[in-house]
Amino acid sequence: MKYVIIGAGQFGRALALKLADTGNEVTVLDEKEAVVTELKDRVAYALVGDATDPRTLRQLDLTGDDLRVIVAIGEGFERSIMITGLLKEMGVKHIYARSVNTIHARILKLLGVDGQIRAEEIAAQQLADRFMNMSLLHFRKIDSSHALAEVHLPSDWIGKQLKDVDLRSKYKLNLLTVRRGVLSETGDDVLATPNAPVIDFPEPDMVFEQDDMLVLFGLEESLKKFAEHFGV
Amino acid sequence: MKYVIIGAGQFGRALALKLADTGNEVTVLDEKEAVVTELKDRVAYALVGDATDPRTLRQLDLTGDDLRVIVAIGEGFERSIMITGLLKEMGVKHIYARSVNTIHARILKLLGVDGQIRAEEIAAQQLADRFMNMSLLHFRKIDSSHALAEVHLPSDWIGKQLKDVDLRSKYKLNLLTVRRGVLSETGDDVLATPNAPVIDFPEPDMVFEQDDMLVLFGLEESLKKFAEHFGV
Repeated sequence: MKYVIIGAGQFGRALALKLADTGNEVTVLDEKEAVVTELKDRVAYALVGDATDPRTLRQLDLTGDDLRVIVAIGEGFERSIMITGLLKEMGVKHIYARSVNTIHARILKLLGVDGQIRAEEIAAQQLADRFMNMSLLHFRKIDSSHALAEVHLPSDWIGKQLKDVDLRSKYKLNLLTVRRGVLSETGDDVLATPNAPVIDFPEPDMVFEQDDMLVLFGLEESLKKFAEHFGV
Repeated sequence: MKYVIIGAGQFGRALALKLADTGNEVTVLDEKEAVVTELKDRVAYALVGDATDPRTLRQLDLTGDDLRVIVAIGEGFERSIMITGLLKEMGVKHIYARSVNTIHARILKLLGVDGQIRAEEIAAQQLADRFMNMSLLHFRKIDSSHALAEVHLPSDWIGKQLKDVDLRSKYKLNLLTVRRGVLSETGDDVLATPNAPVIDFPEPDMVFEQDDMLVLFGLEESLKKFAEHFGV
């Protein structure tokens, strides 16, 4: 797949690198030379230019069904709209744009973008969820009352089999999987996922080991009760 | 729990509202009067002021173990560092700060914050994952090879029982749960989670219904194969 990313601020830059690292052909366009220089050996094409100028956009190959253009501008409402409008006029098939507030979102919708990205909204929701559940290692809501959460193995479960601990009937929780192995460095980002590998599907006769982390699914209140009960 | 949020840009504002809406006492401090006015009826306290001035911070009650202060400033590296330093000097127990690049992150670490928030990084990762898996309704990596994904029910499974479809042995996938019911509006945010409610734990004799969405766990390649096979 081909991607053109317009704007290489924190978000655009991170997105460009993640897409390039997974084998995509990524083109980045930004006004700042320093940003472009830093990216040019890490993506297919990195160009300096003002995307609100149609001549700049015409220099890019924006045709093809397998191209997605992302307007990754976080500030400068007007520039985001101008560029998105130009891309639409040029007949670009797949356009995604970052939106910064509800008016911006409504205009992007009228322009007919394929999707919007509310980066801060997503991060704020995740952080609020995290704060509300600091006793759990990692927490993701699945609907308004259910969640997926990770907890340390209760210490007296070491050596027990999954079928012996009665997670489902006693605690009303389902074990999705178990993280087992070396935890690589996630940095200090409070929203980073614990990144030890998981062991596919735990069988009923699986034996718990020290340092296992349980990935559990159930009602939020069941998850909290479990964490409190075991002090995990 | 009490929260003081310094900086009410997109991220700080969204965080303040989410925390206030779940019953927390939230204080917001920002330099811009318009932002503060808009928030003042929706959070406990909303104040206009320059947080780099120690006199402004001294007006806030920053004591107590149950207080978390979040420096939610996305631009202005220096202001973020200045404010975080002042909060540390004042003996604030729990400080979280948004970090915008690796130098910023290293300085915040030296200052001893409890956690950092890389909002754009989180959003970029999720969007990259989403782009790589557009055939799936919703997608969340669990480790480097496993993921959680949501797909529409294959149409010829309507009326079948869970135990009849052999998800585990035929497709090497585990059914975490099923979304069933009215899908409320998620807007056009490509990162929004489908938000129909889930039905706790599906039993082997559960009968699939039209419009069910399956929440599946397994290897990424198994998830993709499933989506391709059924065209869901």
